[in-house]
Amino acid sequence: MFIEKLEQAQRDNNSLVCVGLDPNAAKIEQLGVGLDDWLMAMVDATAPHVCAFKPQIAYFAAMGAEEELKDIIEYIHQNHPAIPVILDAKRGDIGSTAEQYAIEAFERYQADAVTVNPYMGGDTLLPYSQHADKGVVVLCKTSNAGSGELQNLTLDNGQKLFERVATQASQQWNDNNNLLLVVGATYPEELAQIRSIVGDMPLLIPGIGAQGGDVQATLQAGLRDDGLGLIISSSRGIIYASDQADQFQQAAAEAALALKNTINDHRQ
Amino acid sequence: MFIEKLEQAQRDNNSLVCVGLDPNAAKIEQLGVGLDDWLMAMVDATAPHVCAFKPQIAYFAAMGAEEELKDIIEYIHQNHPAIPVILDAKRGDIGSTAEQYAIEAFERYQADAVTVNPYMGGDTLLPYSQHADKGVVVLCKTSNAGSGELQNLTLDNGQKLFERVATQASQQWNDNNNLLLVVGATYPEELAQIRSIVGDMPLLIPGIGAQGGDVQATLQAGLRDDGLGLIISSSRGIIYASDQADQFQQAAAEAALALKNTINDHRQ
Repeated sequence: MFIEKLEQAQRDNNSLVCVGLDPNAAKIEQLGVGLDDWLMAMVDATAPHVCAFKPQIAYFAAMGAEEELKDIIEYIHQNHPAIPVILDAKRGDIGSTAEQYAIEAFERYQADAVTVNPYMGGDTLLPYSQHADKGVVVLCKTSNAGSGELQNLTLDNGQKLFERVATQASQQWNDNNNLLLVVGATYPEELAQIRSIVGDMPLLIPGIGAQGGDVQATLQAGLRDDGLGLIISSSRGIIYASDQADQFQQAAAEAALALKNTINDHRQ
Repeated sequence: MFIEKLEQAQRDNNSLVCVGLDPNAAKIEQLGVGLDDWLMAMVDATAPHVCAFKPQIAYFAAMGAEEELKDIIEYIHQNHPAIPVILDAKRGDIGSTAEQYAIEAFERYQADAVTVNPYMGGDTLLPYSQHADKGVVVLCKTSNAGSGELQNLTLDNGQKLFERVATQASQQWNDNNNLLLVVGATYPEELAQIRSIVGDMPLLIPGIGAQGGDVQATLQAGLRDDGLGLIISSSRGIIYASDQADQFQQAAAEAALALKNTINDHRQ
């Protein structure tokens, strides 16, 4: 069960930090290491300080690194089996095609969870959510500057579109209790509103760090009473903390630990 | 320029038909051919009768067939250079990640166009649309039964969400005049409404055939005065027209020709 695995990792490592694995070919080449080695170095350096890893498939797809993506997820399962892997793919398609994407995420790559896009409707999320042991992380309010253009549109009943997605996700689409939502740290007000709609549902929070999201505001808006309920994801701020070949692994470890500590300071 | 290439192919082949390439491993194995050979057979059989090919990346991704996807697009460019290729990927992510997906579609796979999801907002479509020579096909009203759950929500100004997407796509997001919309053949009323909003913008129409969309209703609702403006996509009805090893290629050619003729009968 994905959410149980996630929350166990959050308790065991006392961490809400998720490390996003967004491999930038040019930056990695500059370090003089291969992609596989860089990925393993990032994973090993940060594993003690995180509750999840989130490889972003677009970076792998752009450079044709499907084998490396498969390898690093297998490496995480073998060497850090308590840490779940969220494949950040933001897939969305009609049912018969969504079944293929579910095979891609859960069978080919053996991810524990996948991010998906709700625009096509709840029926297109079933091929993922019917895998009851897997997590399905639905875009709700995204971290980008233009996310309000559709997501913040007001409906005729006064609800915003992102609130409707939160409502449907928690009340209609969650038969297997394996849904989560994506909510950008850049929008703490919307985060608070979403928390009030979805109860205890865990939320994946991108947008801390390079995108400008604030840790304290995020925790105030979204933390559950039990101190969990949030997966706070950072990519660039951790994995590219140093561009020095002899320091990048240590710098990533320190950046992950520092983010964990900053979060925990505000979580007390 | 994608739209010029598309409309030239529509005129040259007198066809609005797009063949969707959705390789089903089990069905292809049953025919006793390899994936590469099957794809080339489908392309060669139907090329005289189509205006576009639309490989669905989910089917390739589920079976780890990235090389075969790359190969078949290259094969189309070399052997049927007048026929554009629309990569059906329905990608959607924040700008820095969308740039990676644009590299995937346009550089790695050399697609002429890609399908994308608008939920995250217009800023997330720029990394695709800034490739002025490429087409960007934005989901508007999709063909699945549950598409109305979000897309048909009424906004506080009386507009439906899919109408807002059509409005933004035609008035805000289309600086390079390279946007198109996806509208399911299963919703002719919405198609007519979208046509009235977007003027001459070409529309990609899935949902004919296996999904139940009607050709006549589609043409009445969406055809432009010049007899173009629609790309009518069919996958299963053409590529799996026969499950016999000695007939599947001929059956696909006949099915593509039959759909072209049915469309043209109503287009006169």
